[in-house]
Amino acid sequence: MLTFIYLVAIVAEGMSGALAAGRRNMDVFGVAVIAFVTALGGGTVRDVILGRFPIGWTQHPEYVGLVIAAGLLTTLIARHMHKLRRLFLVVDAMGLVAFSLIGCEVALRLGYSIPLVIMSGMITGICGGVLRDVLCNHVPVVFQRELYASVSVVVCCLFLGLDALGLGETVSTVSSFAVGLTLRMLAIGRGWRLPTFSYQQRWE
Amino acid sequence: MLTFIYLVAIVAEGMSGALAAGRRNMDVFGVAVIAFVTALGGGTVRDVILGRFPIGWTQHPEYVGLVIAAGLLTTLIARHMHKLRRLFLVVDAMGLVAFSLIGCEVALRLGYSIPLVIMSGMITGICGGVLRDVLCNHVPVVFQRELYASVSVVVCCLFLGLDALGLGETVSTVSSFAVGLTLRMLAIGRGWRLPTFSYQQRWE
Amino acid sequence: MLTFIYLVAIVAEGMSGALAAGRRNMDVFGVAVIAFVTALGGGTVRDVILGRFPIGWTQHPEYVGLVIAAGLLTTLIARHMHKLRRLFLVVDAMGLVAFSLIGCEVALRLGYSIPLVIMSGMITGICGGVLRDVLCNHVPVVFQRELYASVSVVVCCLFLGLDALGLGETVSTVSSFAVGLTLRMLAIGRGWRLPTFSYQQRWE
Repeated sequence: MLTFIYLVAIVAEGMSGALAAGRRNMDVFGVAVIAFVTALGGGTVRDVILGRFPIGWTQHPEYVGLVIAAGLLTTLIARHMHKLRRLFLVVDAMGLVAFSLIGCEVALRLGYSIPLVIMSGMITGICGGVLRDVLCNHVPVVFQRELYASVSVVVCCLFLGLDALGLGETVSTVSSFAVGLTLRMLAIGRGWRLPTFSYQQRWE
Repeated sequence: MLTFIYLVAIVAEGMSGALAAGRRNMDVFGVAVIAFVTALGGGTVRDVILGRFPIGWTQHPEYVGLVIAAGLLTTLIARHMHKLRRLFLVVDAMGLVAFSLIGCEVALRLGYSIPLVIMSGMITGICGGVLRDVLCNHVPVVFQRELYASVSVVVCCLFLGLDALGLGETVSTVSSFAVGLTLRMLAIGRGWRLPTFSYQQRWE
Repeated sequence: MLTFIYLVAIVAEGMSGALAAGRRNMDVFGVAVIAFVTALGGGTVRDVILGRFPIGWTQHPEYVGLVIAAGLLTTLIARHMHKLRRLFLVVDAMGLVAFSLIGCEVALRLGYSIPLVIMSGMITGICGGVLRDVLCNHVPVVFQRELYASVSVVVCCLFLGLDALGLGETVSTVSSFAVGLTLRMLAIGRGWRLPTFSYQQRWE
């Protein structure tokens, strides 16, 4: 189940990367790279930080192909993408939650401590988007937008909490998935944001 | 001793990261991430490049907590930070020097050659700030400001030189720490800079 | 042979990094870092992604010295660099092709699958330039310019194809080198580009 959602999620992330590349007028090669980095960059950063080699996608070139295909397809259907806005946001939210849960599982299996398990989920969830924005020369949106990374943290904590209560992996996964997805969609719908910190003094 | 200075240093770096995040109007989550990256990013890059797994801070989640707490606290006291300007610069300089010495030691213990030991010190000293600036979409200040990275190089070379002279690790550490701190404070006070290279032709 | 071209290539990449640093008015330390990252960053990213430790250049500090020397020398002769424009473009193209072939070989020897071997070549060929542009706060030019990264892909595929036909490593290397170099020079001369994707809607 999580694998299926994972595949849908990397497709959605790849498409989001392609749109970002289009905003910078990149060529189709740039589109393919940004799609790849957005979809698989989070897992890459996680694996490197956890010292988990070989890195996940290097054993699954078919994922790379899927993501690049999704990115290139996006260039063809881009003019109609705004009609899919709602669907796209739902899929993107599912991706965030699925990535977070997968990140937790990976760190758990490697025997890392609880704080690291949560960080692993969060890194998997947000680093793809961070790398996309850095390569497109923007300040990463996940640090400024509606609840996004915090959804990732909530999902990871909830999953660990339910699991610790002995509810079993399936129940814990499904419950935290549902809560995370709901939270993210509510955040978008109602414009929920974290408090912002503005600091404009120049003294350093 | 170096551990205590290290803790003070990562707090200072975390605060510097939080201020940088504030200049980009990030939310508190962004503040936490930038604080984390600024304080622990240098050691992360060093460990990855030296192939040293598990990465240092993954075994010390309390460091991560400390750094994030420092970043969030900064959002509360930011309006008074300019009064602490002098203290902040001293602590930041101590951090630079302590990071450099720790980076040297790590590479020495792994058996790397002298040039790599110096690079390891420098990477530990400056990469946190570089990552902070990249994530905040700036050209890294360490490539443009008063003597900063060069202080790191001086500290590493001096430490290795004194150690090679047989002065023992304690004397070498303390001496190079004192020299590095003095050099950095003098550089700030007198505006010492390296020569700058400007090149504006467009022919490539 | 490939080693000699590799050395010429990292010198050329180091010089290109130095010029980029000069466009941002960096100090000589920044010049050294950008030269280093441009020349050796691609191999670093490749080694990390393939989990190949120790990373190549950490065992060859003389390469690091060579690259930094090339970068600093560039600051002295920069005003005459435009006269060398043609030579520089040829050397840069040779570097791209040599990097790609070396990247292929590394992944082949580690037993990675064909798609990963091609990606390894491409990562080695382009990531140095990508890191240079990120550190200089630009959108990476390889995602926008004349055929560049695609040359890398063509070279890798051709090399693997010829090798699979049983032509032997030497013939395969020389042939794909020649084709790649010709393709890149033709692309520059005639302004060949990949189709570009522009997308300016804001709905996300």
